[in-house]
Amino acid sequence: MKRKNHEILNKIKDLANETLEAVKRGDNPVMRIPMRSLRNVEFDVEQGLIRMGDRYQERFFFHQGMAKKFMQSFLVASAIMELLEADKTTSIRDLFYMTKHTIGKGENTFDDQSESDPIIEDLEVTLKALREELHLFASNRGTMVGNITLVDAGDTIDCRRQGSGGWGIPSIVEPDVIKFKRSEADFVLLVEKDAVWRRLNEDKFWKKYNCIMIQSQGQPSRGVRRLIRRLHDELELPVYVLVDNDPWGLYIYSVVKQGSINLAYESVRMAIPHARFLGLAFDDRERFELPHEVTIALNDKDVKRAKEMLSYPWFKKKHWQKEIKGMLDSGLKLELEALSARGITFISHEYLPEKINNSMYLS
Amino acid sequence: MKRKNHEILNKIKDLANETLEAVKRGDNPVMRIPMRSLRNVEFDVEQGLIRMGDRYQERFFFHQGMAKKFMQSFLVASAIMELLEADKTTSIRDLFYMTKHTIGKGENTFDDQSESDPIIEDLEVTLKALREELHLFASNRGTMVGNITLVDAGDTIDCRRQGSGGWGIPSIVEPDVIKFKRSEADFVLLVEKDAVWRRLNEDKFWKKYNCIMIQSQGQPSRGVRRLIRRLHDELELPVYVLVDNDPWGLYIYSVVKQGSINLAYESVRMAIPHARFLGLAFDDRERFELPHEVTIALNDKDVKRAKEMLSYPWFKKKHWQKEIKGMLDSGLKLELEALSARGITFISHEYLPEKINNSMYLS
Repeated sequence: MKRKNHEILNKIKDLANETLEAVKRGDNPVMRIPMRSLRNVEFDVEQGLIRMGDRYQERFFFHQGMAKKFMQSFLVASAIMELLEADKTTSIRDLFYMTKHTIGKGENTFDDQSESDPIIEDLEVTLKALREELHLFASNRGTMVGNITLVDAGDTIDCRRQGSGGWGIPSIVEPDVIKFKRSEADFVLLVEKDAVWRRLNEDKFWKKYNCIMIQSQGQPSRGVRRLIRRLHDELELPVYVLVDNDPWGLYIYSVVKQGSINLAYESVRMAIPHARFLGLAFDDRERFELPHEVTIALNDKDVKRAKEMLSYPWFKKKHWQKEIKGMLDSGLKLELEALSARGITFISHEYLPEKINNSMYLS
Repeated sequence: MKRKNHEILNKIKDLANETLEAVKRGDNPVMRIPMRSLRNVEFDVEQGLIRMGDRYQERFFFHQGMAKKFMQSFLVASAIMELLEADKTTSIRDLFYMTKHTIGKGENTFDDQSESDPIIEDLEVTLKALREELHLFASNRGTMVGNITLVDAGDTIDCRRQGSGGWGIPSIVEPDVIKFKRSEADFVLLVEKDAVWRRLNEDKFWKKYNCIMIQSQGQPSRGVRRLIRRLHDELELPVYVLVDNDPWGLYIYSVVKQGSINLAYESVRMAIPHARFLGLAFDDRERFELPHEVTIALNDKDVKRAKEMLSYPWFKKKHWQKEIKGMLDSGLKLELEALSARGITFISHEYLPEKINNSMYLS
């Protein structure tokens, strides 16, 4: 069995043994679960990422309000053991069905997936393991091309020869599944939109500018975030993020950079504090002489979101305040596709080269 | 220039020349555009697909209500010429930005993409060309693995060695981009859900049962539909569709099989009338002894959709009426993941083999 599987199996067994010991001692068995609420989230200025504090909650077995969740926790842990022992992976939806059954007088172990998902998150923090290490996957999304060869589940994937479609990024990209083999790339370019990525792939941008190009179809999936983090750490590649100039684009960058508040416990292994925001920036419209007609007015929701972002600790730096206020003052947003108003290949041949060659990024 | 590009460029030029001729003759220039409304859609029983009738609308240049659309049609046609001449492809969102500008006294050529998209569809039917042949792409979605080697934009892709991620299916899969090279596969399996596809890929189902496995992440994209149609036509492979047992799953199958009502003009090159519905079927629950707890009650919307489907001409056959009524009578639906209640690999090792080996499909 793989070392990592073994390690996590042991943690689950420890959890079970502690409970058994408590029963033998005649104590009330208890699980200590780190708290995932906002109260227990803090921004680690030194590391530059959102992380979980050290508060935890206690879940008792002999407790009317907690007994069911206690049972559910062990039921899910036992299904995860089954996965690890068989070296199989599955979706969180599957896990719900695997653990759903009727006990006692017709009561369901779970009625709904909204009950089993938080239990999985409880186990993630309790066992200090990423969901992927528990062999559970989220939906996969995102594709990749560029100057790298990797091994995926034993198959060698040359990302220089992945055609127009690219290699589909799986949900689980831990080192036991995905190994990096050879890369001469100078950086990673993460593009929010698949249409823009395809434009760049058609123009073979990655070849000319020696990079790895990933598209995330909106907010990057866990697999994409974890893969970029590994490329950044293990191959020491800078990561550039290219998004629309709107609050949603900024939020995508923010999650890549610092992690999300909801899933703070994952930041340590997913966030990339040094990720570079390449654009679109609020002053690109002027700098690249884009016509006014391609701009879109910010709506109330945009304004609200942008104002929230002004108060994020990691956007407190002067240049970020200027960037976000610039967007708010102009009252305008801009999509990546708007660059096409200057020509089909403007983004590949002018916009990106000028930005990258002149280090025009925020960080 | 590629032959196909040339052919379509000529059609656009013909359109432009006819208009110029009309101007020279002093006539009112007119475009004749096949109608895309429900009134002009019919089910071709012999061919087994939904197709467009021969009604058309006339769009005049000298006409207060039509002049703008006439101008927009030529503006879009001209942008498409630019794409074809440069042999570049782009998204319909890009095209909107490429053609959006201000004319005369501050009037926009387009205010919104909802204005340019129907113009693209008008041109598709007028020029009798798929959107992809006009070098426009929709979003890409879906991945593929299995016993086939293909060439994508000059790169050889061996789908037997695509790891856990698979090859990302591009939006444009026409023969000038994607060429089939070598395949020993016996059939194509289209799976609605990526989580299920990953289960099957992890179990190397495609290897054991010698097939090509595609996941569509819900309703298949145009690229996925067109690719499967090409595999079916050119390699003479039967296509099996595996979806949830609910009205949405049936609808996915229905679109793969007969095409959609909204885009009837595409059916001729996208629909697969002989596609086989493998499951989930309403009686799988009983046949495969799935516990009652994994079923979900149909809601009002489900019931309404299922009843609509009873009246589709292509579901009039006795076995289809039985299938849909079976679902309605039971009042239950069933997700593919529910099979996991019988074990992680139940779908790979028992469900699919039994279904396929015994030809338990509907068509």
